[in-house]
Amino acid sequence: MSEGGRLIGVGVGPGDPELLTLKAVRAIERADIVAYFAKAGNQSNARAIVADRLKGVAELPLLYPVTTEIHRHDPRYRDALAAFYEQAAATIAAHLEAGRTVAVLSEGDPLFYGSYMHIHTRLSPRFPAEVIPGVTGMSGAWSGAGVPIAQGDDVTAILPGTLDEAELARRFADCDAAIVMKLGRNLAKVRRALATAGRLERALYVERATTAVATTLPLSAKTDDSAPYFSIVLVPGWDGGSA
Amino acid sequence: MSEGGRLIGVGVGPGDPELLTLKAVRAIERADIVAYFAKAGNQSNARAIVADRLKGVAELPLLYPVTTEIHRHDPRYRDALAAFYEQAAATIAAHLEAGRTVAVLSEGDPLFYGSYMHIHTRLSPRFPAEVIPGVTGMSGAWSGAGVPIAQGDDVTAILPGTLDEAELARRFADCDAAIVMKLGRNLAKVRRALATAGRLERALYVERATTAVATTLPLSAKTDDSAPYFSIVLVPGWDGGSA
Ligand SMILES: C[S@@+](CC[C@H](N)C(=O)[O-])C[C@H]1O[C@@H](n2cnc3c(N)ncnc32)[C@H](O)[C@@H]1O
Ligand SMILES: C[S@@+](CC[C@H](N)C(=O)[O-])C[C@H]1O[C@@H](n2cnc3c(N)ncnc32)[C@H](O)[C@@H]1O
Repeated sequence: MSEGGRLIGVGVGPGDPELLTLKAVRAIERADIVAYFAKAGNQSNARAIVADRLKGVAELPLLYPVTTEIHRHDPRYRDALAAFYEQAAATIAAHLEAGRTVAVLSEGDPLFYGSYMHIHTRLSPRFPAEVIPGVTGMSGAWSGAGVPIAQGDDVTAILPGTLDEAELARRFADCDAAIVMKLGRNLAKVRRALATAGRLERALYVERATTAVATTLPLSAKTDDSAPYFSIVLVPGWDGGSA
Repeated sequence: MSEGGRLIGVGVGPGDPELLTLKAVRAIERADIVAYFAKAGNQSNARAIVADRLKGVAELPLLYPVTTEIHRHDPRYRDALAAFYEQAAATIAAHLEAGRTVAVLSEGDPLFYGSYMHIHTRLSPRFPAEVIPGVTGMSGAWSGAGVPIAQGDDVTAILPGTLDEAELARRFADCDAAIVMKLGRNLAKVRRALATAGRLERALYVERATTAVATTLPLSAKTDDSAPYFSIVLVPGWDGGSA
């Protein structure tokens, strides 16, 4: 009895394979095709998290176009990405039309700043689709650090490190807890913006949370400006003071 | 070989028992004591999520003091809560001193607006402690709705529904994506603040995400003002437009 094709966005969590959910494990084990995004020539991080569970299943790597020479605000960058997502969606659609279940792996949680959403918005109107939420990178980061991020009436801001320095500083000054994603080359700017807002002191820098090479240190103790893609800054909203 | 007592904050996810992580399952199965917060006379929601896994393990319910007659900004409310957390921490400390592993269950993610942090800050300086991150209620909500919450340069604001109406409206107007937690009796106020900020149209209301009784509807289509504790409002930052 064929049930027809089914699209599943599968959150694989922040890095530790033990942080997969039971539901994600089952979806991966039952899928006909396991798809994942990767840069050409690079390992897919999401695939690495579930590598031990992929024995024998058909894999479908979705390789980002090389865009390093084009600035991300250049319209050609957006066009190249849009064409890539169209092509990836068409490839997956062909499998769905043939009745196959396709699990698309996402680091962390699929619909939270993830590439999977570009597949989901294109295909969920046409095919049965399901999203399995995952543990986010930020949850992995503050759990590894053992730092409560927010409580009670705290306002939490999640900020991409790509924002302007002045905009970052304004927002750091207007929230209780802050999380900065997409650090990479934005680290020095983020540090300056935190200092401007008077909030550098309690900021933490976390790299590759929940993996064997995870690093956590006060941002003020990180003396260089280099940060890998999987790094994040946390500014806890609460100092553990009163209940 | 006794390894000494160990405190583990265990995120049990948003409601679906399949959204437990492998790590959470193992921690619960290996614990000597499984503790959880509950209101006297009420079931613990976190316990209900893992009920099928508790066969035979010693349970430690931590019962919140009854505070319904005291306003939450009254100092007596804070004092009653602080005394309760002190007592709960002391009870757990006694087990840790006796060399037992105590798993404290938390809905969603433990350090994200959760009560577990009050135990963690009191006991982690004295005992080995670990936090197992979980899938948050908000991830469960937007995944169930199939709605991408944020992408690219989006700024995401997480707002407690307890904030003033004017403050909510100001913040709704100053972010891309917004999530409102702790709705309950704040629902009508949140709806008005969204309307003031011109953002009611795309807001979603989600109740008991990922459970068998989950409900998702446009907030503008919810005609009454009653919302249970486990409900949330999502304002997606992205309309699925350009890549
Ligand atoms: C495109 S976003 C994807 C977020 C992902 N969907 C999630 O739910 O965490 C990538 C950013 O997430 C953060 N991130 C994800 N996993 C992380 C980890 N294990 N350690 C540190 N940062 C992480 C980094 O800031 C990174 O630049
Ligand atoms: C005290 S906070 C705890 C949050 C939890 N630690 C987490 O990570 O989701 C409780 C609030 O979370 C939201 N929430 C948690 N789980 C939910 C669910 N399954 N459905 C809807 N809202 C939920 C509701 O807004 C609720 O008032």
